[in-house]
Amino acid sequence: MALKTREDYIKSLKAMRPNVYKFGKLISDVTTDPATRRTVESHARAFDAAYDPKYAEIATTVSSFTGEKIHRFTSLMESLEDIMYNSKFKRMMYHLTGTCTGGTCVGWNALNVMWNVTYEMDKEYGTNYQERLKKWILYAQENGLVVAGALTDAKGDRSLRASQQPDLDSNLRIKEIRDDGIVIRGCKAMICGVAASNEIFLLPGSAYREEDKDFAVACVVPRDIEGLTIVETRRPSDERELENNFDIPETGISQAYLIFEDVFIPNDRVFMCKEFKYTGKIIQYFTANYRACIGACVAGQGDVMIGAAALIARANGLAAGTFMNKIIEMAINNETTYGLGIGAMAAGKKHPAGAWVSDPLLAHTNKVLVATLPYETKRLCQDIGGGIVETGCFPSYKDFMSPEYGHLVQKYVKAGARYSAETRARAARLIEWLTIGAGVPGCMHGGGSPDGAKLVVRANIPLEEFAEYARKLAGITEEMPEPEKKK
Amino acid sequence: MALKTREDYIKSLKAMRPNVYKFGKLISDVTTDPATRRTVESHARAFDAAYDPKYAEIATTVSSFTGEKIHRFTSLMESLEDIMYNSKFKRMMYHLTGTCTGGTCVGWNALNVMWNVTYEMDKEYGTNYQERLKKWILYAQENGLVVAGALTDAKGDRSLRASQQPDLDSNLRIKEIRDDGIVIRGCKAMICGVAASNEIFLLPGSAYREEDKDFAVACVVPRDIEGLTIVETRRPSDERELENNFDIPETGISQAYLIFEDVFIPNDRVFMCKEFKYTGKIIQYFTANYRACIGACVAGQGDVMIGAAALIARANGLAAGTFMNKIIEMAINNETTYGLGIGAMAAGKKHPAGAWVSDPLLAHTNKVLVATLPYETKRLCQDIGGGIVETGCFPSYKDFMSPEYGHLVQKYVKAGARYSAETRARAARLIEWLTIGAGVPGCMHGGGSPDGAKLVVRANIPLEEFAEYARKLAGITEEMPEPEKKK
Amino acid sequence: MALKTREDYIKSLKAMRPNVYKFGKLISDVTTDPATRRTVESHARAFDAAYDPKYAEIATTVSSFTGEKIHRFTSLMESLEDIMYNSKFKRMMYHLTGTCTGGTCVGWNALNVMWNVTYEMDKEYGTNYQERLKKWILYAQENGLVVAGALTDAKGDRSLRASQQPDLDSNLRIKEIRDDGIVIRGCKAMICGVAASNEIFLLPGSAYREEDKDFAVACVVPRDIEGLTIVETRRPSDERELENNFDIPETGISQAYLIFEDVFIPNDRVFMCKEFKYTGKIIQYFTANYRACIGACVAGQGDVMIGAAALIARANGLAAGTFMNKIIEMAINNETTYGLGIGAMAAGKKHPAGAWVSDPLLAHTNKVLVATLPYETKRLCQDIGGGIVETGCFPSYKDFMSPEYGHLVQKYVKAGARYSAETRARAARLIEWLTIGAGVPGCMHGGGSPDGAKLVVRANIPLEEFAEYARKLAGITEEMPEPEKKK
Amino acid sequence: MALKTREDYIKSLKAMRPNVYKFGKLISDVTTDPATRRTVESHARAFDAAYDPKYAEIATTVSSFTGEKIHRFTSLMESLEDIMYNSKFKRMMYHLTGTCTGGTCVGWNALNVMWNVTYEMDKEYGTNYQERLKKWILYAQENGLVVAGALTDAKGDRSLRASQQPDLDSNLRIKEIRDDGIVIRGCKAMICGVAASNEIFLLPGSAYREEDKDFAVACVVPRDIEGLTIVETRRPSDERELENNFDIPETGISQAYLIFEDVFIPNDRVFMCKEFKYTGKIIQYFTANYRACIGACVAGQGDVMIGAAALIARANGLAAGTFMNKIIEMAINNETTYGLGIGAMAAGKKHPAGAWVSDPLLAHTNKVLVATLPYETKRLCQDIGGGIVETGCFPSYKDFMSPEYGHLVQKYVKAGARYSAETRARAARLIEWLTIGAGVPGCMHGGGSPDGAKLVVRANIPLEEFAEYARKLAGITEEMPEPEKKK
Repeated sequence: MALKTREDYIKSLKAMRPNVYKFGKLISDVTTDPATRRTVESHARAFDAAYDPKYAEIATTVSSFTGEKIHRFTSLMESLEDIMYNSKFKRMMYHLTGTCTGGTCVGWNALNVMWNVTYEMDKEYGTNYQERLKKWILYAQENGLVVAGALTDAKGDRSLRASQQPDLDSNLRIKEIRDDGIVIRGCKAMICGVAASNEIFLLPGSAYREEDKDFAVACVVPRDIEGLTIVETRRPSDERELENNFDIPETGISQAYLIFEDVFIPNDRVFMCKEFKYTGKIIQYFTANYRACIGACVAGQGDVMIGAAALIARANGLAAGTFMNKIIEMAINNETTYGLGIGAMAAGKKHPAGAWVSDPLLAHTNKVLVATLPYETKRLCQDIGGGIVETGCFPSYKDFMSPEYGHLVQKYVKAGARYSAETRARAARLIEWLTIGAGVPGCMHGGGSPDGAKLVVRANIPLEEFAEYARKLAGITEEMPEPEKKK
Repeated sequence: MALKTREDYIKSLKAMRPNVYKFGKLISDVTTDPATRRTVESHARAFDAAYDPKYAEIATTVSSFTGEKIHRFTSLMESLEDIMYNSKFKRMMYHLTGTCTGGTCVGWNALNVMWNVTYEMDKEYGTNYQERLKKWILYAQENGLVVAGALTDAKGDRSLRASQQPDLDSNLRIKEIRDDGIVIRGCKAMICGVAASNEIFLLPGSAYREEDKDFAVACVVPRDIEGLTIVETRRPSDERELENNFDIPETGISQAYLIFEDVFIPNDRVFMCKEFKYTGKIIQYFTANYRACIGACVAGQGDVMIGAAALIARANGLAAGTFMNKIIEMAINNETTYGLGIGAMAAGKKHPAGAWVSDPLLAHTNKVLVATLPYETKRLCQDIGGGIVETGCFPSYKDFMSPEYGHLVQKYVKAGARYSAETRARAARLIEWLTIGAGVPGCMHGGGSPDGAKLVVRANIPLEEFAEYARKLAGITEEMPEPEKKK
Repeated sequence: MALKTREDYIKSLKAMRPNVYKFGKLISDVTTDPATRRTVESHARAFDAAYDPKYAEIATTVSSFTGEKIHRFTSLMESLEDIMYNSKFKRMMYHLTGTCTGGTCVGWNALNVMWNVTYEMDKEYGTNYQERLKKWILYAQENGLVVAGALTDAKGDRSLRASQQPDLDSNLRIKEIRDDGIVIRGCKAMICGVAASNEIFLLPGSAYREEDKDFAVACVVPRDIEGLTIVETRRPSDERELENNFDIPETGISQAYLIFEDVFIPNDRVFMCKEFKYTGKIIQYFTANYRACIGACVAGQGDVMIGAAALIARANGLAAGTFMNKIIEMAINNETTYGLGIGAMAAGKKHPAGAWVSDPLLAHTNKVLVATLPYETKRLCQDIGGGIVETGCFPSYKDFMSPEYGHLVQKYVKAGARYSAETRARAARLIEWLTIGAGVPGCMHGGGSPDGAKLVVRANIPLEEFAEYARKLAGITEEMPEPEKKK
Repeated sequence: MALKTREDYIKSLKAMRPNVYKFGKLISDVTTDPATRRTVESHARAFDAAYDPKYAEIATTVSSFTGEKIHRFTSLMESLEDIMYNSKFKRMMYHLTGTCTGGTCVGWNALNVMWNVTYEMDKEYGTNYQERLKKWILYAQENGLVVAGALTDAKGDRSLRASQQPDLDSNLRIKEIRDDGIVIRGCKAMICGVAASNEIFLLPGSAYREEDKDFAVACVVPRDIEGLTIVETRRPSDERELENNFDIPETGISQAYLIFEDVFIPNDRVFMCKEFKYTGKIIQYFTANYRACIGACVAGQGDVMIGAAALIARANGLAAGTFMNKIIEMAINNETTYGLGIGAMAAGKKHPAGAWVSDPLLAHTNKVLVATLPYETKRLCQDIGGGIVETGCFPSYKDFMSPEYGHLVQKYVKAGARYSAETRARAARLIEWLTIGAGVPGCMHGGGSPDGAKLVVRANIPLEEFAEYARKLAGITEEMPEPEKKK
C-alpha cells in the first residue's frame, strides 16, 4: 500500500465533521482556516518528508506486523535503534517546521506504551486489550493516521483526588459501561496537535487508586467523534496568524481543550477500562519515553535558532564568527538534551511485550534540563539578534508596506547594502516567533512539570547505597542509618 | 505652581498634532487609540503617584532651581540620595504598571547627563549650552513634561562608520546650520515611550570622531514637531491590545521609529552641534547612570512576577510555600540587579557641574546581569505557574464568553472551589504578558547590548595591576609584561 | 601618637603567653612558627599599608573620638563613606596577601555593631555598656590592636537549643557573675585570624530567648588570657607551610577553635551580660554589615585570580587575549559581589547611636552570591591555567631541586624560552593555593550559611504587597489572601 | 586461566624495578610507600571487584579472542553494550575508591582505539601493527595487566609545533629506528595511575603533520623499563598521605611525569612509527570514547559526594530531607554527564576493525559539561556539609588525639549525642578530600581542555544547514551565504 501523501492527508482532514473552535467561532475547514492552517501545514511536512529522499530514512520505516512501508510515527519501536529514530524524527520535524507537531508524537508514544501495558493487563486479567490495540495500530499504519495524544486532565482542585472533586468531570472519566462500549465525560486540557490530527489517543492523566478507578480509561477516538467539542487555546501573538505576511511564519503549532460530553467509544477502541492498578505503569512508561525524546524537540528548535541567529547576524551586517562563542553555547545546550535523551534510551530496555522503555532516571533528568537549557538558548538567540529581535522592535508588515510611509520604514530597517529590508525583517520576526511568539512550544510543563521530574529523580537516588560507599571510604565504623523524618 | 495631574497630562497629549502611526494607520488620539492608550495609561500612573500619599515621596521632589515641588522625573540629580530615587522611582513604576514607562526615564537621564556635558563644552568652547538647557529644564519642571529620550540610530551597515554609510540618513544628522537653529534628518529606532511623551530628548547614538561630526547633535523636540513621523513597532501579542478584555492588562509599553525629514530645531533647544569630541562623554555618562538604574526596572518587574506567581499558585489551589524556594531565587535575582545598581551609584561621584555620575565598571557589570537574570526570573515564574501559563495554554476571552460553549470552557478552567475561572484566567494571562507577551520590556539590548557592556568591563579591568599582585604573592622575580598581541 | 608599625605589631605578638596549638604541639612564638607565621605575615601587611602612600588612604583614618590618625580597622564607621572603606580595605588586604586576614575584619565589625547595640541596651536597661566599650575602643585605637571576632559556637546538636544541649558548654556561656566581672566557659569554633590577633571580640552566636539567657554574652579578651586554649584547624595542604619553598606562598590564613575553661572577664570588658533580647539585634546588625562587606573579600581574591590567570597564560606561552572572555566573566563575578555589597551599604542607614547599618535584604542576597560566584571564578581560573594548575599536576619543590633528576623536571616544566621553569611553577602553585589550597578562605559558611541568608531574604520579601500589585494589574476583583499552610 | 587477584597484583608491582620518585626520593616499593600505597590500594579494589558477586558482572567479561574470563579493563569493546560497561566500570571504581584509578582506564581505551587505527594503517601501508597489538592484548588479558595510558606531552612552547621546539624532547619522539625496535626520548606529563600500573600505553599527544612525523609514535612499555624515570606530581594535601589517620582516606590517586631518556622499544610493542597521517585518527577516536566515558567518572565521584553529604548532615544532627533539594541537584549533575556519555556511545558506531567509536559531537559536549557541573556538585556538597567541611575547619588528627587537650577538641567536634566526634571528623575530612583535597581528579583538563572540546563542537555544528532551515521558515528568498571572515 502506498504511503499517505500530503494531499491524502489534507483530504482526510477536510472530510471530518467540524468540531474545532477558536476565537468564539466554529472552524469549518481546519486546513484553510487561519487559526489552524499553520499547524496543518506543519504536520503535512511529515508527509512531504516521507517522499523526500533526504528525509525518507527518518520519516518512514517498515511495519513489524505487515512488512509494509509505513510512516515512522505509526510504528512500534522494538529496539534501541527504533526509538532513537523517535528522537531523529522529532528533531527533523523541528527543522522542517520550527515548532511542535504534536500529532506525530504523542499518539505514537501512546500506542507503544499501551502495547506494553495491554500485554501486562491481558496477562493479569485475561482481557484482550492488546488484540484490540493491534487491530487499531494496523489501521493507523495503513491509513497513515496523524494521532494526537491526550493525558492532561483539566484537574480541578489540585489538592483533591479525582474522585473527591466537587465536579467529577474535572478529570476524564467513564460515565457508563455498556455491552458494546463505554461512555466517557470530562476534559483533556492543553493537548497538542489536535486540530491537525485524524484521531486522538486518550490516556489517564495520573496514577489512580481504587477509589478513582472510574478515571482509569485508555482509548482512541476520531477527532470528530460525536459529543467532542474542541476549543483551541490562544498562544502569544496568535492573532498574527489571522493575517498572511512576514510578521509570522507559515508553519505553526496548536493546543486545545477537548471537552467530552457523554461520548460513546466502541469496545474495540478501548484499551483500559477501570484497571486502575495499571495507570501508574502507563504514566511510568509514557514519561520515560516521552522525556527521553523531548530533548530532541528542544534541540531541533535550538538548531533553527542557531540558523536564525546566523541569518540575523548576516542581515545586521556583522562578520562571521562575531558570535561564535554564543553559537557554541547554544549547540552545547541542544546536544546536551538530545544526547542525554539518547542516553536514557540506551540505558533502557525492551519490555517483554516488545516495545522499548527508556530509563526513567535519565529521562526525568533530561526533563529537568529541558525546563532550563532552552531558555538559555532563547536568550542567547535574542542576544545575538540585537535590538531588532527583542520584544518586536520594528514596525509591522502593514507599516512596512504603507503607501504613505512604508518606504521610510524600509529605508531604516535595511542594514547595509547586502540584504533587503524585508530579509532582515523576516529573520527578525522568525526569532521573535521562536523565542517569544506563537512558535514557542510548551516544553516546560508539556508532558509534566520539571518538579514532577525531580520527584522521580529523587525516588531513583539510591541514597543509602551512596551513603554506604562514603561511610566505607571515610573509615567510619558506626552505623549511620537514615534519620527519622521530623516536621 | 501645582503639580500636573493625570487629567492635565491626558489633555496635553490630546492637544498634539497626530503624527504617530501603527498598523498602517495614523492615530488621531493617542490617549484613546487601542494601540497607544495602554502606554498612556502607564505614564498617567506616574501623575497619580504624585498625588498618592503612599508614593509621593518617590514620585515628587523639589526643584533645585526654584524650590518648587516638581515631578521627580524632571529633576536634576545632584546627590547619591537623588539618584537612588531614580531606582526607587523606576521600581515603583513597574509595580504600578507592570512594564516600562520610558517617557519618565530616558529623557530624565538625558537632561542630567547633558547638564554635565554642556558644562564641559561651555568651558572648552565658550558656548552657552548649559544656559539653554537650564531654560528648558525649568520649562519641563513647570509643565511636568513627559520626555522620551532617543539615542539609538537606525545605523545602517554595522561595519561602516556613520559618515561612510551609503545612506547618510541611517544615523540622525545635522543637515544644515542656520542662524536661528539647525535642520536634522535621519531616524532614531526602537525608542521607548514616545507615544505617551510630550517631548523627545535626542542624543547622539555613538561616540563620534571628527569625520562624523555632522552626527554630533543633542537637542530636544516636541513629539509632534513638523517633519517628524513616528511609527510604532509591533510587539509580541500586541494585537490583543486592539480588544478590551482579560487577554491583556490595561497598562502597556510602546516603542517607535522616529523619522526626521528635515526638521528645524531652534537654537535654544540645541545643546550640542558638531562638538564630536564630547559625544563619547555623553555615551559614557548616559550609560553609567542608565545601566545602574536599569537594575531597578527588571527588579520591579520581577517583583510583579513574584506577586503573579503567588496568585496563580493560589488560583491553582496549591498551598502556600509550595514554591517558596523558587520565589526566593526570583527575589535574589531582583535584589541583585537592584542592589548592584545602587552600588554603582554609591561608587560614583558628583560631577563638577553638579549632576551625579555612577561608576561605569559596576554599572556595566549590572547591564550584563540585566541581560541574564531576568530571563531566569521569567522561567521560574512560568515554572511556578504550571501548564496554564506556558505558551498561552487556555482559550481566549471570546471562547471563554461564547454563548455556545463558554460555560464549558469556564467549567474546566476553574481549579477548585475557591476562585472563579476568570480569576485564574486573569492571573495566567498576566504571567503570559509579563514573560512572553506585550509587557516584556526590551532590557537586554535597551540602552545598548550586554556585549557592549562587557567591552566596558574589559576596559576597566586593571589587568597588569592584578598580575602584579599575583606575581608578588607567587614570589616570581622575573618581570612578566603583557605579551604582544598576535593574530 | 604614632601609628603602630609592623615591628611594633610583631613585638606585641611575641610578648604574649603561648596558648596556641597546632599538629599536637604548643606554638612558642606565633610570629616564627611555620604553622602561624604566614597568617602573622598577612596581618603585618596591614601595618605596612598604613605607611605606604599608595595604600594609606585606605589603611588609615582619623578617630572620631580623638581626631588622631588611627588604623582603619579600629575605627567607628559613622557614614556611608566610612563603611565603603571597609570594603575597600578588605579588597586591598586580599590584593596584598591573597587571602583572609580575619584579625582586621571581624573585630572591627563587632565593635561597630556593639556601639549601636550597647546604645540600645543602655537606653532600655540603664546600663553603661557603651561607656565601657568606648574606653576599650580608645585603647584599641591607641594601640593599633588586631582584633579577631568570634561568633560561631561549637553548637553541639543542631536540633536542640543552647539550654537544651546535653553538654551546656557546646555554646559559650556565662558560668558565673561576680561583682568585678564574669566567668565564661565553652567553645567558639572556626574563628579566623586568632593566631595573628592581639585580642578577640566575643559575640553571641545566635539570637537567644529567655531560657537561653546564659549564652547572651559579649565581651573582649586578650588572645592569651588565662584559661583560653586555642587549637588551630588544619586546612587543605597546610603541611606545605611547614616547609619554606615555592610550593606555598609566604602569606596565609588561620582558623581556630577557642576553648574557654572558666575564663574571668573583668566588667569593663563586658558589653552584654544576659540581655538575651538584644542578641537578635547583634546578629542582625553584624550580618548586615558583614555580608555586605564580604563581597569585597571574594572580589579581592578574584582579582588576584585574574592576575594569576594572566601570569600562567604568559608562562604557558599563550598570547594575550586568548582567555579574555573568561577573564571578563571572572571580573563580572568580582564586581557583582563587591558592588552589591556597596549597594547594601548605600541602602542602609546610620543608627541613632552613630554607626552605620547596611540593608539586610541586599546584604543577605550578597551572601548567597558569595556562596556561588567565587566557585565559578575559581573554576575559570583553573580552566585558564591548563593542566598544570589542576589538582597539582607537577612535581614538588623537592623533586624540582633534586640533584639527581631535578634538571629533568625543570626541563619539562619549562614551557618555551621566555620564562624559567621556576616562574611557571610558582604561578601554578599560586593558583592551586588560591583555588584548592591553603589560601581558600571559608566564605561559604563564614559568617553564616547561604541557607541562613536565604531565610533572611525570604523574611524580607513583601509577598502580599507584590501579590497585590499583580492582582491589580491582572484586573482581578476577588480577594486572594495567602492560603493556610498545610503539610 | 584464573583471574588475577589482589595478591597477584600486589606481587606483580613489588617485582618491578624501582623507578618512581616523589618528594625527592626513590620509592623502593610502591605498594607500601605512603606516597603511592593509596593509589595501589585503589587499583587493587578492581581485582577485589572481579571476585565480588556484587560487582563481577561489571568488573569482568569474556575475551572475544579466547573466550576466557578476563578483567573488564583489558577487553576489546565491540558493541554498544561493551562500551556502556566502560562507563559502568568507571562509576563503580569511583564508588569503591572515591577517586580516579587511571590504570584501569586510559590504557584500556588506548588499546581499543589502536585496534581500529592499526587496522586502518595496515590497510594503507601493509604494516602488521594490528597483529602486534593483538599479541600484546592477549598477553595483557592473560596477565590482568593494569595499564596506564599517556598522551599529554610536556609540550614546551605552546605557540610552536613539535618540530619547532627549541628543545625537541618537549614532546615524546622517535630518536632512532633500529632493525629490532625504536629508541624514544622525551616526556609525558600529568599521567594518571602510573605508580599503580604494570605497563604504560604511549600515544601521540597531538595530530601531527609530516614535518612532525618523528613524534608520531604509539607503543607500550613496562612501567619499569630501562631509561624511564617517573616523578610523581604533588597534589593538594598529599603530605597528609605520609601519615596514617583519619585526616585522609585509605585510597588515592596518582599522577606523574614520565621521563624517557633514550628508551629502546622492541618492534612487537610498537604500533605506530612515523605514520603521522593517522595521529589525528588516534586523537579523534581516543577523545570520542574517553570524553563519553568521563561523564561516568564524575558521576561516580558525585555519587560518593551525595553519600558523604548525607553522612555529614546526619553527623551534624540534621533531619533527613533538610537538604533534599540540593541532593537532587547533585544527582541531576551526575546523571547528566553519565547519561550524555551513554548517549554519545549510543550515537556512535562500530568501526570496521571491530571496536566501538562514540559520537564525537556528543562526547565533546559532555567534556564541556564535565568541566563545569562537577564544580557545582562540589559546591553543593560543601554547602550541605556546613562550616566544618569548608576549608578544613577543624583541628588535625594529632590535635584530636592530644593527651593534653584532645579531649577538649573531641568534646567540641562532637555534635549531638548520636555520633562520635571521630565519626563527624571522618565524614568532614572525606568531603574535604573529595572537594578540595588529594582525592580531586583532574577532570577539567584530563584528556584535554574544555576549550579544545568546544572547538570540536564548533567543527561539528552544521551551521549552513541550520541557516537554511531558518531561511526557509522565515520565507527569505535571497541567498544568505556565510560572510567572508574579516579581522
